Amino acid sequence: LNSFGNFTASADPLPSWAESDSRDRIIEFVAAVTDPQRPEYVTPAERIAVFDNDGTLWAEQPVYFQLIFAMDRLAQMAKDDPSILTTPVLQAAATGDLKTVAEGGHDALIEVLNASHSGVTVDEFQSAVADWLETARHPETELPYDQMTYQPMVELLRYLRDEGFKTYIVSGGGVHFMRVFAEEAYGIPPEQILGTYMDTTYDSADGGPVITKADGIAFVDDKEGKPINIERTIGRRPILAGGNSDGDFAMLEWTTAGDGPRLGVLIHHTDAEREWAYDRESPIGKLVDGLDKGPDMGWVIVDMAQDWSRIYTGAN
Amino acid sequence: LNSFGNFTASADPLPSWAESDSRDRIIEFVAAVTDPQRPEYVTPAERIAVFDNDGTLWAEQPVYFQLIFAMDRLAQMAKDDPSILTTPVLQAAATGDLKTVAEGGHDALIEVLNASHSGVTVDEFQSAVADWLETARHPETELPYDQMTYQPMVELLRYLRDEGFKTYIVSGGGVHFMRVFAEEAYGIPPEQILGTYMDTTYDSADGGPVITKADGIAFVDDKEGKPINIERTIGRRPILAGGNSDGDFAMLEWTTAGDGPRLGVLIHHTDAEREWAYDRESPIGKLVDGLDKGPDMGWVIVDMAQDWSRIYTGAN
Ligand SMILES: [Ca+2]
Ligand SMILES: [Ca+2]
Repeated sequence: LNSFGNFTASADPLPSWAESDSRDRIIEFVAAVTDPQRPEYVTPAERIAVFDNDGTLWAEQPVYFQLIFAMDRLAQMAKDDPSILTTPVLQAAATGDLKTVAEGGHDALIEVLNASHSGVTVDEFQSAVADWLETARHPETELPYDQMTYQPMVELLRYLRDEGFKTYIVSGGGVHFMRVFAEEAYGIPPEQILGTYMDTTYDSADGGPVITKADGIAFVDDKEGKPINIERTIGRRPILAGGNSDGDFAMLEWTTAGDGPRLGVLIHHTDAEREWAYDRESPIGKLVDGLDKGPDMGWVIVDMAQDWSRIYTGAN
Repeated sequence: LNSFGNFTASADPLPSWAESDSRDRIIEFVAAVTDPQRPEYVTPAERIAVFDNDGTLWAEQPVYFQLIFAMDRLAQMAKDDPSILTTPVLQAAATGDLKTVAEGGHDALIEVLNASHSGVTVDEFQSAVADWLETARHPETELPYDQMTYQPMVELLRYLRDEGFKTYIVSGGGVHFMRVFAEEAYGIPPEQILGTYMDTTYDSADGGPVITKADGIAFVDDKEGKPINIERTIGRRPILAGGNSDGDFAMLEWTTAGDGPRLGVLIHHTDAEREWAYDRESPIGKLVDGLDKGPDMGWVIVDMAQDWSRIYTGAN
């Protein structure tokens, strides 16, 4: 069966995608922009593809995995020094009380992020993330978080690279957090990961210079921030963009409004059985504008339940 | 002669470098990190090389070329609408009066940049830069500015890429300005150009979304800002860094303090005859710390007069 699986994979670039209009349109787009004989041809240098991460490349329920990491880390830090839990929000976070953190809204989130993400060097922070990924398990699937990547999207990323695309993550998640697993999980190197970031400081200490994470979010890579960050950092307009929520609307709009062939792809979470079903009313991954306006803009709306024959990389 | 020139270039990766210790040390470093049999071997993915631009890859006298562009653009804009010159500084800038602008210090510089660089879309701005490069000539050399690139550095960039390095610019100059010419001049694509940037806004207008340059500098890519930007954007510590002023000190320090083989390169402007000679006392490209501490840190100090057999790409 294994060798048959390999055979299938080499014949079919998207083996975990069911026969579907979504799959056909993606393959047709790639065929068009990579064929020098066709008018839609795009040179390799301009084949930039950008993808949101949470809810697009891996799962995001019951809450963004980075927030689970933040709360786990806070609990761990409090074991050594309980006095760091200076507010009711931090005390709640350290016990895994998501409800209280969520009720605190944006301010509570920043409080938890500052307490768990700052005051350490980038190297220390990334070691902590790596350690957490080794041992933490998702409360429902019991999978390691970095095995809750979507196998169809891992295949799509690889397919695009095989066809000369440069694949990027452009995510509301933190750059330092994502860089720990994205190369192994998605084949995307650190320099192709854009995201939210906190301020950092550079200090030339006795033991050599260090870069330390500071309090406060310097840039939020969400909504209009996504095309702004793409323009600022990549300096080219992508020809393909994938996302799953209204936080990706501007990125897909910016991408698909360019001249020539463009593709926008939205992952619609329709699979309550194998994953989660949510869109218009969800506090995480809210999707309204994309469903209302995306189809008229030519975007592919992926129906997860129908279009994907497999969900997680870490489970068949 | 032309075919002989090509033959020489293919035999010698750095034909515009004189026989010198600087040249030998660069070639020895590249040989060491690219040979899988040697302990200093570095995988291609980690072969990140970063370079300052002004004074390192192209000239910067009598003043940063981007400031000359800003003043020229202001003069052009004032032809259509003289009322934009609302202050004595802007009036001076529009007449090319560098002295008054320089005396105004940082505030005057920001004033000139805001007036000449903001309120236009990125596309419009970059068209204006391209038009300027076509026609503007340097007051002393009479060369187009983008031919005042240093031929030895253009060769070094190409040599590094041929040896599997990824070459980046990390400059105090503006990203939108540099991206107009850097790909043709240096072979460095937009996504490998880091620099200072202004805020931009994303607006979804009737004619399609636009990204517009706004007033104010959002990030200054100089001094400690350079390693911070490298860490944030590239996410790997470079193994080679080149610069020419104390604005590059932190970048070279960060690069060369890493484990394993590292190389720092400082261009010392010693050539009053073919270029300019300046260092400790210069308002542009001031170099003190690099000369005092660089040699002990193992940095290569390039003596432009001695080590380069040719200066500008655009002139023999
Ligand atoms: Ca998302
Ligand atoms: Ca410089």
